Amino acid sequence: MSGGTGGSLAIIGLGPGDQRLLTGAARAALDGAEDLIGYHPYVARVPERPGLRRHASDNRVEVDRARHALALAASGRRVAVVSGGDPGVFAMAAAVFEAVEHGDPAWRHLDITVEPGITAMLAAAARLGAPLGADFCALSLSDNLKPWDVITARLEAVLRADFVVALYNPISAARPWQLGAALALAAGIRAPGTPVMLARAVTRPDEAIRVTTLAEARDAPADMATLVIIGASGTRLIPRGGSERPFVYTPRSVAAPA
Amino acid sequence: MSGGTGGSLAIIGLGPGDQRLLTGAARAALDGAEDLIGYHPYVARVPERPGLRRHASDNRVEVDRARHALALAASGRRVAVVSGGDPGVFAMAAAVFEAVEHGDPAWRHLDITVEPGITAMLAAAARLGAPLGADFCALSLSDNLKPWDVITARLEAVLRADFVVALYNPISAARPWQLGAALALAAGIRAPGTPVMLARAVTRPDEAIRVTTLAEARDAPADMATLVIIGASGTRLIPRGGSERPFVYTPRSVAAPA
Repeated sequence: MSGGTGGSLAIIGLGPGDQRLLTGAARAALDGAEDLIGYHPYVARVPERPGLRRHASDNRVEVDRARHALALAASGRRVAVVSGGDPGVFAMAAAVFEAVEHGDPAWRHLDITVEPGITAMLAAAARLGAPLGADFCALSLSDNLKPWDVITARLEAVLRADFVVALYNPISAARPWQLGAALALAAGIRAPGTPVMLARAVTRPDEAIRVTTLAEARDAPADMATLVIIGASGTRLIPRGGSERPFVYTPRSVAAPA
Repeated sequence: MSGGTGGSLAIIGLGPGDQRLLTGAARAALDGAEDLIGYHPYVARVPERPGLRRHASDNRVEVDRARHALALAASGRRVAVVSGGDPGVFAMAAAVFEAVEHGDPAWRHLDITVEPGITAMLAAAARLGAPLGADFCALSLSDNLKPWDVITARLEAVLRADFVVALYNPISAARPWQLGAALALAAGIRAPGTPVMLARAVTRPDEAIRVTTLAEARDAPADMATLVIIGASGTRLIPRGGSERPFVYTPRSVAAPA
């Protein structure tokens, strides 16, 4: 197999779920694909049509999936690899380039494009107000691919430096305690009243968004579909009264120390 | 003025520039607007049409612009405030909620929505490969709204903790030295060969993307339209040969210390 056969590989971000949050470019790339590859819930979001072969796979086989996609593209197929959110944020794009680096040298000359998408923290922030309005970080709590000590060192660094922190992959059946440990670490550094937002399945039918505080966040429900945002010292709630959820925002300004 | 008059305010992300990177929801919100408010280059991206009043303003008047938008919405108009990229990332959403908090209490009951967009770091990353494939931060280098000491303390923290760092607002006519100072700080912490990417006007006709190293980045051209990404220790280039730009990616894995 080699490049130059007319094949291509588009790594496409499907956004948080609602079809209306797909970009036009992502939709066009999906419409042009002959093979659709991805974790099965993402493949299931793309409507079936004649001429589109679907290859859904389980989670945690990202590099196998990437190699399969590259081999199909090298054979001349127009391939789409789909991720939820943005493919470059804790998703398939890095897995594809890892496979390119370590795979058939001809893969380096394939027509590979990345179509960005609305990643979970941007979708969650939009629903809440503007919690990412100042400096912020995105940190995965999964210790499948990095040591837990690295995760806690990074989390402590950004908490102390007063970034807003978006936690991806906060919890799963196989990793039940990591989110609690991260929130406990945060509670040792930030004030108990610091806003914490748990945004689950944003824009999907089972969306659930909770605004709480660091003191109370450990008892809030979370799962694999949840994105957790820990506010910075400046993050504020704007109460709205009644049953309306408060707006949450982080001011752009940081005052000079007195 | 009060809420409940049928007015609304949508804070809309236009993405990096290419119309094809707009979401469907953002386009629908633009189509439904009666008043369009924003910094003039963003207002200029939205086609004129009958029934759409355009209110373009200069930069650095964000809160005045936000109050104007809220007052129009409270008077019953359907208002769209536009930002480039994502409105929640160093853009108008935080300014609007700041105005809500400190303004007419009735504004808290307005129909305010945020339509997320593809922020510059996601657009730049997609063009490059997957440089944000592991933990990353977004940090504004503008010291108009926060002290320079806060910026350098934050930058140092995330450089030492080995995050990929996306620098927004790296330089402007009024702030000519901040990017050089940030790169000098990085050069004291990360290896000289660390990949640095300067992505200017991504997806626009004058797009210019440069992949360099920390040792050479200080001489690279940058301006207000540039997004700078400093790689982590794991960030890698995949050479492609000839005139093709290398792919850049950050592997998802971090090895356990020996």
